[in-house]
Amino acid sequence: MPGHAADVGIIVRVLTGADLATLIADTEQEILRLIGERDGPTRGLYEMIRYHMGLDGSGAPAGKRMRPLLGLLAYLSIKGSYAEALPGAAAVELGHNFSLVHDDIEDGDRERRHRATLWTLHGVPQAVNTGDAIFAISRIALHRLSDLGFSDARVLRLMRLYDQTCLTLCEGQYIDIWTSERDEVVPVDLYLDMIGRKTGALISASVEAGALLATEDEAVIERYKRFGWALGLAFQLNDDLLGIWGEEQATGKEPSDIAKHKKTLPMLYALERAESADRDRLHAIYREESPSPADVAAAIAILERAGARTYTREMARRYRDEALAEIRGVDAIDESARAQLEEIIVRVISA
Amino acid sequence: MPGHAADVGIIVRVLTGADLATLIADTEQEILRLIGERDGPTRGLYEMIRYHMGLDGSGAPAGKRMRPLLGLLAYLSIKGSYAEALPGAAAVELGHNFSLVHDDIEDGDRERRHRATLWTLHGVPQAVNTGDAIFAISRIALHRLSDLGFSDARVLRLMRLYDQTCLTLCEGQYIDIWTSERDEVVPVDLYLDMIGRKTGALISASVEAGALLATEDEAVIERYKRFGWALGLAFQLNDDLLGIWGEEQATGKEPSDIAKHKKTLPMLYALERAESADRDRLHAIYREESPSPADVAAAIAILERAGARTYTREMARRYRDEALAEIRGVDAIDESARAQLEEIIVRVISA
Repeated sequence: MPGHAADVGIIVRVLTGADLATLIADTEQEILRLIGERDGPTRGLYEMIRYHMGLDGSGAPAGKRMRPLLGLLAYLSIKGSYAEALPGAAAVELGHNFSLVHDDIEDGDRERRHRATLWTLHGVPQAVNTGDAIFAISRIALHRLSDLGFSDARVLRLMRLYDQTCLTLCEGQYIDIWTSERDEVVPVDLYLDMIGRKTGALISASVEAGALLATEDEAVIERYKRFGWALGLAFQLNDDLLGIWGEEQATGKEPSDIAKHKKTLPMLYALERAESADRDRLHAIYREESPSPADVAAAIAILERAGARTYTREMARRYRDEALAEIRGVDAIDESARAQLEEIIVRVISA
Repeated sequence: MPGHAADVGIIVRVLTGADLATLIADTEQEILRLIGERDGPTRGLYEMIRYHMGLDGSGAPAGKRMRPLLGLLAYLSIKGSYAEALPGAAAVELGHNFSLVHDDIEDGDRERRHRATLWTLHGVPQAVNTGDAIFAISRIALHRLSDLGFSDARVLRLMRLYDQTCLTLCEGQYIDIWTSERDEVVPVDLYLDMIGRKTGALISASVEAGALLATEDEAVIERYKRFGWALGLAFQLNDDLLGIWGEEQATGKEPSDIAKHKKTLPMLYALERAESADRDRLHAIYREESPSPADVAAAIAILERAGARTYTREMARRYRDEALAEIRGVDAIDESARAQLEEIIVRVISA
């Protein structure tokens, strides 16, 4: 069973080496065009941006670049080429990263990808502002689509999708902060609503953006959009499983979501459905400052007994199957790109 | 000599009561269309947004709405109408307010317009996220321009200006945080660069946006843009003067910028130009946790002796005269709107 980090490997494996290297390198080039070195008094701002984006030339692990890859593959599957869609890919990756910079502040996370987060290095004021700058740059990225020949109407439609998605993301984050600051058990429905906005929306928009740049066929766009939505939810639920039952959690390389007091779907399900004594025990474990390995093991046993693992796995698979059904119905020009999208689903949702 | 708050009164006085009430009320209606009440789990987010915007129906003092007023007057002076420019006015006011929410966090300010700031009421995590949501909504506002009949090319051009302006604002804020976290004397040139990005850019863009929605005549747009730029700098320098020599500062109703350890232009000038003993005294006063009224009075005497007040006033007037020269050259359709713009300059820059 793969750990969180395995997602990168999965995407690497399904693409041929050359394809992947090219898609990611070209996306990063497109981003660097916007955040390259500056002279003068704003130099430090762009250094912080490149550091966070994993583009400071230090060779540090960057993100998975999952969103731009999905967008480029969607475009490629319809058009057979991808270079002209790169500004869209850059925008979604920048947009994702703006939200990470602010999430790290909001969650008090000191590390991301085994490096210090921006706010721990430069303080909350600079980190808030750097996130804002990345947000602004993500929108500036989209304007190059006009130079690459897309009609004004298409570019505007893409921007409308992007702007609405950014707001949806903030709505999801609002619900997340609100519920995690309160010691209440979040109903499963509200949790699904929240992850749909917080994670599903941008993954879905990445795929939809690729499709709507490639075609004016509304039925096709709608299909890609539904594919992206289901994939986004499946991805998050799979992440919820890995956060408790992943290899790195099992071996102690990464702390379990339980030790981090995170209430993801398996825990919420158990808090609703477990036997009364088990529920009390879970609440007690969550009240501890830092639960011991024995506590974590006890909590996991309760989750399994309550059927929380099975339930979450089945939910993840249901969304995965929905995503598969959508993408299999597509009449793709580039079959290999379509197959790669399909393959990503099967492999990512592996827990 | 008016205090900071007098700016509102000034704008109120130059416009006839009815005009002003209508322009502001219509802008606020346009904003409320985007941030009105919601049901369901995101209700609290929109409540926070309305609270910060002064649109929660509490009758609390809202902002001056200077940016949307300038944009609408610019449009009106060219077109003779203004209703169709309201989405642009809403966008600049929302954009300005997104930056205020984050500025309050970055500067640790607990009050704004005599009310608690968002972060003191709801914590930094929710306030960061609420600012992001306002940013996203400011962009969504612009899409309604398409429904009101503006061409896609015009809307895209406005968005390009807006996106670039938001980035410029973040650059200015970066320089501001960077310099205020260090105990160095900022050179006057860098200070002017910083306020140009932080304050001048959005005021300039508000005016330019009004013009570019109203006409395709590049020479006219350029003139309004230069007018806005000069006005923005004049406005900030006037604010620097009022922060030290304003009525509310003199009577103790508002703390002086000196008591708040702010290094605005008069102080920077004095730190560069005052006699050596005076400079040492200023540094000593700035090192004190909370300078006494006697310290503040001593600092003010030093500033005046060094010619800092005269210098700043002359700079403010130079930009004011530049702004006047630009707007007087305009061949306006609506003379009264043009006259109102001119009048705003003369009255705002009064120190």
